[in-house]
Amino acid sequence: MRVAGLISGTSVDGIDVAVVDIGDSIDVVATATVPYPADVREAILSVSNAATHTGTIARLNFLLGELFAEALSQSGVPLETIELIGSHGQTIFHEGEPVEFLGRKIASTMQIGEAAVITERTGIRTIADFRPSDIAAGGKGAPLVPFLDYHLFSHPERTRIALNIGGIANVTVIPANAQPEDVLAFDTGPGNMVMDAVAPPFDRDGVLARSGHVDRALLERLLADPYYYRDPPKSCGREQYGAEFVHQSGIDIATATELTSRTIALAIGRYPATGEVIVSGGGAHNRYLLERLTELITARVTTTAEFGISVDAKEAILFALLAYQTFHGRAGNLPSATGARKPVILGKISPRTKAGRST
Amino acid sequence: MRVAGLISGTSVDGIDVAVVDIGDSIDVVATATVPYPADVREAILSVSNAATHTGTIARLNFLLGELFAEALSQSGVPLETIELIGSHGQTIFHEGEPVEFLGRKIASTMQIGEAAVITERTGIRTIADFRPSDIAAGGKGAPLVPFLDYHLFSHPERTRIALNIGGIANVTVIPANAQPEDVLAFDTGPGNMVMDAVAPPFDRDGVLARSGHVDRALLERLLADPYYYRDPPKSCGREQYGAEFVHQSGIDIATATELTSRTIALAIGRYPATGEVIVSGGGAHNRYLLERLTELITARVTTTAEFGISVDAKEAILFALLAYQTFHGRAGNLPSATGARKPVILGKISPRTKAGRST
Repeated sequence: MRVAGLISGTSVDGIDVAVVDIGDSIDVVATATVPYPADVREAILSVSNAATHTGTIARLNFLLGELFAEALSQSGVPLETIELIGSHGQTIFHEGEPVEFLGRKIASTMQIGEAAVITERTGIRTIADFRPSDIAAGGKGAPLVPFLDYHLFSHPERTRIALNIGGIANVTVIPANAQPEDVLAFDTGPGNMVMDAVAPPFDRDGVLARSGHVDRALLERLLADPYYYRDPPKSCGREQYGAEFVHQSGIDIATATELTSRTIALAIGRYPATGEVIVSGGGAHNRYLLERLTELITARVTTTAEFGISVDAKEAILFALLAYQTFHGRAGNLPSATGARKPVILGKISPRTKAGRST
Repeated sequence: MRVAGLISGTSVDGIDVAVVDIGDSIDVVATATVPYPADVREAILSVSNAATHTGTIARLNFLLGELFAEALSQSGVPLETIELIGSHGQTIFHEGEPVEFLGRKIASTMQIGEAAVITERTGIRTIADFRPSDIAAGGKGAPLVPFLDYHLFSHPERTRIALNIGGIANVTVIPANAQPEDVLAFDTGPGNMVMDAVAPPFDRDGVLARSGHVDRALLERLLADPYYYRDPPKSCGREQYGAEFVHQSGIDIATATELTSRTIALAIGRYPATGEVIVSGGGAHNRYLLERLTELITARVTTTAEFGISVDAKEAILFALLAYQTFHGRAGNLPSATGARKPVILGKISPRTKAGRST
C-alpha cells in the first residue's frame, strides 16, 4: 500500500512529506519539505503562543489544509498512486498532562490543517488528528515516534536508541529483543531550540559553536536542573527553552550547543548497554553537534540515513505508518511511551467521495 | 442500525441528544437535552465571539467531548445498543463565504467537542466534523438540515416547507415530488435571537409579546432591510441580530416577535403553492408566535410533532442520519442548499478500539 505522511513540526519551518510503500517492509518512495510562506508561519506562531481570535484559527485550519495538499504534490509522486494520507497537521497547542479546567482535569492537544480539504483536493482518503485518541485513552498524546522507531530499529541482540533532535531532543530506547511494552521514550532537553534562538536561523554545520567558547560556569549552572536526572517518563517543551530561557540565561551558541550535547549524552548514559544511537531531525545536520555527541557517548553514533531514511523525513514517515495502522484497524500508540491505559487506534478518517460514494 | 445524534446549537443552551433506528424509516428511540453548566456555557461564548487563548479552545474541545459523551448516557438508551454516533459538536466559528486570508480566499468553520473522547468514553464509533467536508467541496458548510427535511417530508403531490426557528429562522422548501437538487433552503431572518435578547431568557408561550404593543414605525423600518426581499440562497447570523442590533434599534418584545413572524411569512409567501409549513426548533414552543404565523401564512401551519419528531430533537436526529450516511459511504449534503459543487460524504470517522483492533 502506498501511503503519504505529512507533518509540520514545532519549528514551523514547513511541511515535511514522505511517500512510502508499506507492506512487509517500509520503503520510502519520495520525501520533500515545502517551506511555509513567511506570513503563514507568523500566523501559526501567533495562534500557537498567545491570545488570538478564534476566527484566525478556523481560517488557518482551512488554509493549512490547502497548503498540506499542495505540499504532497511537491513530492513528485503521482497522486493516483497514493492510496492513503496520514496528516499530522500543525500543533498549535499541546498539554499532555491534565490541568484543572472548569472543575475537571483536562489534558488537551490541538492540531490544525483541515483533513477534509486534503481529502477533497487530492482525492485521497486522509487520516488526521492522531494525538487526541491517545489523550482520550489517558495518554499524554506524545511521543508517537517510538512506534516507528520500534518498527524500524528493534534488533534481536542490540539495544538501540533513536535520537531525534528537533526543537526539543528526544530518545526512544529499544532494548535488545524488545516487546512493544519494553520501549521507553522521553525528552532529553533542548534540541535545536536554544541553538537556533541564539544563532538564527541556525548554526550551519555548527561552525559558530565550534569556534566559540563555552561558558563553563553557566553550563554547570544549567546542567544542575533536576530535570536531566529525573527518571523517565518526562517531557519538556517550548515553555522551558523558549525566548525567556535564552534571555534570562544570556547563553551563547557555543554554550547552547554544549548544553544540548551534554543533556543528550546524560540521557543516553542511563542505558550503558546501548549499541547504537541513531540520530534524526534537523540537529542531525549539525556536524559539530554530532562530533560532540560521538565524543560524549560510548555507543556508536550514526544517523537514520544508514537505514535508508532521510534524517528530515522520519516524522512524516511515522504519520504514513500510523495512517496505515488506523486504516487496517490496528493501534498506533505505544502505551509505555505515552502513558495511555491501552493501545488505541489513532486518528480520524476523512473519507473521499467518488461519484457520491466513498471508496 | 441504532444511531445517536448529538448537537449543541448556536444558543449554547445544552446538548441535544437523539437516538434513532435507521433502516427503511427513521424511528426515534429517545431524545434528551442536557444543559451546559453555566461556566462551560460562558467559556464557549467567550471563545465564540472574541480574542482568546488557543489553549482555552483546546481544553474546551476535550471538555466538551466528555460532556457530549455524558449527555448521551442521559438519553436513557443502553449504550450497548447504539452502533454509531454522529456528533455535530459546538460551532465556535462559521464563515461559509470565503474571505481574503493571507493572500487566499478561505471559507472556514470550527466545531469543537473532541470525537476521540466520545468514542473512547462510550465505546461507540463516532463521526464528527460534518461541515468542513462541504466547505472543502466549495459549499458554505450550511445548512445541512435540508437533507433530513427532504428525507422526512418530501411528498409526491404537496409542496412542503420545513421551518426551523432557532436563534436564526430558516426554511427548507421541498416542492411536490422533488428530487434532491430541487430542494431550496435559506435563512429567513431572526428566529428566537432578538426575542430572547429583549425578554431573557425567553418569552414563555409569547405571553409578553401578546400583551405588548408593536411599534409600527420601527417595524416598517426594520422590514425595509433588503435582505428579506433578496432571492435565495442567503444566510444570516449572530452578527446581524446580536446585541448591537437590539441596542441600536431599541426594539421591544412585541415588535421583535412581530418582526420574526413577518420575516418568516415574507419568506414563505414566495412559495404560494405550499401546502404545509412544518415548524421545529425552540420557537415552536412560542404559542403566540405560532398563532401569528398561522394568521400570516396561507398554508397550514403544523409542527414536526405531527410527524413523530419532537420540535427540539430535529437537529440531533439530522446528525444521526448524516453519520449513518457517512458510515455507508453515502453523501450527506444537498448542493442546492449549501452551494457545494457536488454531493460529498461528510464528517470524520473516529474508530473505536476493541482489544487493540477496530470494529
